[in-house]
Amino acid sequence: MLKIGLLGAGRIGQVHAVNIANNPRSALAAVADVQPEAAHTLAARFGAEVRSIDGILSDPAIDAVLIATSTDTHSGLIEAATAAGKAVLCEKPVDLSLERAEACLAVVSDSAKPVMIGFNRRFDPNFAALQASAQAGEIGRPELLSITSFDPAPPPVSYIKVSGGLFRDMMIHDFDMANFVMGGLPVTVHAVGTSIVNPAIGAAGDVDTAVVTMTYADGRIAVIRNSRRAVYGYDQRLELLGSEGLLSAGNVLENTVSRATVNGVSGAKPTYFFLERYMTAYAAEWEAFVSALIEGTPVPVSLADGVAALRLAEAATRSVKTGNTQML
Amino acid sequence: MLKIGLLGAGRIGQVHAVNIANNPRSALAAVADVQPEAAHTLAARFGAEVRSIDGILSDPAIDAVLIATSTDTHSGLIEAATAAGKAVLCEKPVDLSLERAEACLAVVSDSAKPVMIGFNRRFDPNFAALQASAQAGEIGRPELLSITSFDPAPPPVSYIKVSGGLFRDMMIHDFDMANFVMGGLPVTVHAVGTSIVNPAIGAAGDVDTAVVTMTYADGRIAVIRNSRRAVYGYDQRLELLGSEGLLSAGNVLENTVSRATVNGVSGAKPTYFFLERYMTAYAAEWEAFVSALIEGTPVPVSLADGVAALRLAEAATRSVKTGNTQML
Amino acid sequence: MLKIGLLGAGRIGQVHAVNIANNPRSALAAVADVQPEAAHTLAARFGAEVRSIDGILSDPAIDAVLIATSTDTHSGLIEAATAAGKAVLCEKPVDLSLERAEACLAVVSDSAKPVMIGFNRRFDPNFAALQASAQAGEIGRPELLSITSFDPAPPPVSYIKVSGGLFRDMMIHDFDMANFVMGGLPVTVHAVGTSIVNPAIGAAGDVDTAVVTMTYADGRIAVIRNSRRAVYGYDQRLELLGSEGLLSAGNVLENTVSRATVNGVSGAKPTYFFLERYMTAYAAEWEAFVSALIEGTPVPVSLADGVAALRLAEAATRSVKTGNTQML
Amino acid sequence: MLKIGLLGAGRIGQVHAVNIANNPRSALAAVADVQPEAAHTLAARFGAEVRSIDGILSDPAIDAVLIATSTDTHSGLIEAATAAGKAVLCEKPVDLSLERAEACLAVVSDSAKPVMIGFNRRFDPNFAALQASAQAGEIGRPELLSITSFDPAPPPVSYIKVSGGLFRDMMIHDFDMANFVMGGLPVTVHAVGTSIVNPAIGAAGDVDTAVVTMTYADGRIAVIRNSRRAVYGYDQRLELLGSEGLLSAGNVLENTVSRATVNGVSGAKPTYFFLERYMTAYAAEWEAFVSALIEGTPVPVSLADGVAALRLAEAATRSVKTGNTQML
Repeated sequence: MLKIGLLGAGRIGQVHAVNIANNPRSALAAVADVQPEAAHTLAARFGAEVRSIDGILSDPAIDAVLIATSTDTHSGLIEAATAAGKAVLCEKPVDLSLERAEACLAVVSDSAKPVMIGFNRRFDPNFAALQASAQAGEIGRPELLSITSFDPAPPPVSYIKVSGGLFRDMMIHDFDMANFVMGGLPVTVHAVGTSIVNPAIGAAGDVDTAVVTMTYADGRIAVIRNSRRAVYGYDQRLELLGSEGLLSAGNVLENTVSRATVNGVSGAKPTYFFLERYMTAYAAEWEAFVSALIEGTPVPVSLADGVAALRLAEAATRSVKTGNTQML
Repeated sequence: MLKIGLLGAGRIGQVHAVNIANNPRSALAAVADVQPEAAHTLAARFGAEVRSIDGILSDPAIDAVLIATSTDTHSGLIEAATAAGKAVLCEKPVDLSLERAEACLAVVSDSAKPVMIGFNRRFDPNFAALQASAQAGEIGRPELLSITSFDPAPPPVSYIKVSGGLFRDMMIHDFDMANFVMGGLPVTVHAVGTSIVNPAIGAAGDVDTAVVTMTYADGRIAVIRNSRRAVYGYDQRLELLGSEGLLSAGNVLENTVSRATVNGVSGAKPTYFFLERYMTAYAAEWEAFVSALIEGTPVPVSLADGVAALRLAEAATRSVKTGNTQML
Repeated sequence: MLKIGLLGAGRIGQVHAVNIANNPRSALAAVADVQPEAAHTLAARFGAEVRSIDGILSDPAIDAVLIATSTDTHSGLIEAATAAGKAVLCEKPVDLSLERAEACLAVVSDSAKPVMIGFNRRFDPNFAALQASAQAGEIGRPELLSITSFDPAPPPVSYIKVSGGLFRDMMIHDFDMANFVMGGLPVTVHAVGTSIVNPAIGAAGDVDTAVVTMTYADGRIAVIRNSRRAVYGYDQRLELLGSEGLLSAGNVLENTVSRATVNGVSGAKPTYFFLERYMTAYAAEWEAFVSALIEGTPVPVSLADGVAALRLAEAATRSVKTGNTQML
Repeated sequence: MLKIGLLGAGRIGQVHAVNIANNPRSALAAVADVQPEAAHTLAARFGAEVRSIDGILSDPAIDAVLIATSTDTHSGLIEAATAAGKAVLCEKPVDLSLERAEACLAVVSDSAKPVMIGFNRRFDPNFAALQASAQAGEIGRPELLSITSFDPAPPPVSYIKVSGGLFRDMMIHDFDMANFVMGGLPVTVHAVGTSIVNPAIGAAGDVDTAVVTMTYADGRIAVIRNSRRAVYGYDQRLELLGSEGLLSAGNVLENTVSRATVNGVSGAKPTYFFLERYMTAYAAEWEAFVSALIEGTPVPVSLADGVAALRLAEAATRSVKTGNTQML
């Protein structure tokens, strides 16, 4: 039974707490948060202790920490936790600064303890099945990947300002998905972006709608579409065209009921947002982390994967600003 | 090139006229109708002559006739046309009276000329593909057949009164479909029916909503659902459960457009009624008739098939009246 | 926080244990099972005690019991538990004997404590949404209900022999669903059945494939299709035709991935069986029970509901044996 | 009744001949082709005469010509036909050379006779319905258009060499579709392309897989995906994300049959290629042309539309060669 320290008791920390507690091979031992009340509420629910981050990292009984604090603390906490001999599962992104993330990667590269980055979508049963099918050669050689990723509603502009921008904050998931499905990195990145959803997002220096096209050395192409607003719910789809067919992974709907009337046939919307859509994925992600620790196998999403996705986000950010294709 | 005489220039006669004219191996030579104007309009459109029924039947240049007149004339015209040496494609049903239909079958049984009954649904590409899949053993041994057949709107009560009732007029298509897919006749027929759509239909001695259950000597079961009203369009579906799977044939929709909004995801309705849904089927039916004549093979739907469906309709009518299961 | 005693630690008892423990308003206090090891394993996992049934019923700290023991003990335990002042959630069916179930209903009718029967499918999000839509009048007046319920594979004949037969064991869920959606009881029940899936089931006096047709006093009709074998998975669907449209609730699929190749477009199967399909429903069922207890509202599925479904199962059993329609 | 001269009796000329003959307001009067036999066969089928192009253009009884000859003759024939006072429906593209097409546009700009370009996809019932929905404001303001257009199999390299390349030959349809749906022209065009399907296509200087991203002055974005090979059939889809929802138009499938087995649930493929998918569209296109002529309204796809699409194709060709975004 792995004893886990949870750093951060906010919305996503609470999701992880449930999975840590429900997993038969892990237990939530301690919770730390800058807001003591949040830590107390969460700890009480699962019989865990409230501690400081230092208290958790210095406790030899803690096997691993889950970092769900604010992004600007990720790199430092990854370094501190691995130095303290803890295995780490850290929420994405590694850092808003590629330089800082690369430094972190260098620091922990000699660590005996694994660091896994929380790209939860790799564990979505739909996307995981698509990737496995592609891997198994079910559509021959992949040629063209298309990723659709629309959020239901844009965040407040105040959040946009500190988010690192759409490419680092939102599309970073899709960059990682491309790396996951394509099994390698692109050589060029081209981005267009606009703030057609909310001009205030443009005024804040960001975009809310973007298309990124990436090419690979072997001739493959990937295209990513992002929008901050899809009023019908969280739109999360993949398509992979190969020499022998097409794989598609669609949305998960709220229910399977349809209504046929004189006005047409209507059905349910996609589930609302990431907490609904990826609830299963978060549990599978945690199980994968636990398995890797217990079985001594590599974690399925490495810190290097986190840095690679960030590198693509940086390139896209530069491309949308300069209008030029970026070479990697 | 087969020269065809069309008896009846009404709505369904017009559909057949187009298919006769478009088929490269048949030509519309003559049209007869009790309403001279209808005959003239249709004949003019396809360069055919207007003649009397006798004139058509006595013309040695006419190879075949298509009977699209009112139901009460079908049996007599089938007998007269085969006596005159014409091949026949006759619209369903053979007759409203099972006795009369059986007499007709006896009369023409020695004819050298084929008589085909227009059970158009056997030629629907969806139902034909389902039947072929079943025949090919794709789901192992069939066990349970389900037929859904809902009209978009009930006909006027005046039509109901002369229609022979739901089982002879509407469900007769489904009885034939059951015979087609199951490749044999049932041994019991049980029906329930109600006039919940329009009580005036009940007052006229008919039902507008019915469920018929049939069992087969080898243990198979078929169930047919009919309603005179499905406000969303013509609902025509088949399901066949077998020892190794399920075959389903769904509706044809008006288009493939969907709209995802805050209210859900909506799409098009099924096509409105039989002229829209079965336009392709009518052309394929005609092509099958032409092929059989030219290649000298049996017609794919015989007069005996027409009588068999009528026999099931009679049994269902008796069952709904008596409340008892009918043995065949 | 409600303290719960779980009677029965088998497969379905384990499902309930998870939901009791995960629900923030209930705690699993004690577990009883005829197999001590099963009770111990389950109790350990959730920090509960192992006790005898008597020990649980006589403990004033226990607020409610969940009865997940074998069917022949249900009626007796319902009576004992209510007599002991416990609220009860009991798995279906109430009993294999309608007489015994009715006697149980009479015994507990004066109890101040609620008895809820575990018809889990009412809490499936898809079926619940369909029923709510119908209730809200979205398709006008309901006219024709169709329930499809196919199991993935037949149970061993040894189980069949003690199961009470398909109508009491399997279709009882569908009878309750009809009662739930139609909001009232039918006046006639007609059943056909066959043992085409496995003749040994027939030799044991049961059927494995059946179609039941029920009519209602106001002219509505319901049809239920059951098969013990659908090799593609658990097939659980509803359709309700009304004066203004059709409501359909479809299967839940294993994932949303499709593969388009030269051979066609293929997708995932329905989830395998009830544990997969109804996992969400079991949690919602438990939450509904907890809510009713805490808020003092009636439980959503009463013991009378359990008896009503059993009455329909009896009628169907008689109908399939006699070949006659049963009046209720 | 419009009398029509058909220039070109090849594959697409034959499609048009059927539609001309079937339309109640037009008749096929004359056919010209460089291969006399092709002209004779087609003319005989519809009772038309075989003539030279000059013979057709100089005949005052001919109201309009349909140009279905090889691409290099289009511009010249458009000019000659309008000079001869004929209305024109010309197959796409106007020309492989943008300069030549623009010259043609200048020449005929004063003509009293309309010139329509055969962008058949605008008349596909699915795409037309999507465009109409967008126009009607059903998803608010359009923001992101996505066009998927995959052919089932690449043409021979010999064809590629004279085709003008993927952007002028294949994606030109998609450029026109973008212009149609967006109701205006983009300001930037960026293209990536590869010959991953068949390196010989790359050796011939063309690409077989491409993604084009276009931006509009008001912030909208369009992305087009092309592949010369989708082994599962002709993949033709549209998606339009707007401020209030998403419109999608999917493929037309060969039939609606699905097979559920232990291996999953499989259904039919999209229809094979443009003749199958767009048969309805070609008839609707012809009807639109006939309507415009008879009612004296503007043709729905002008020669200027044909030139505009070609301009985008030129820009994409330059972009893929230079790696740079092209300004328009």
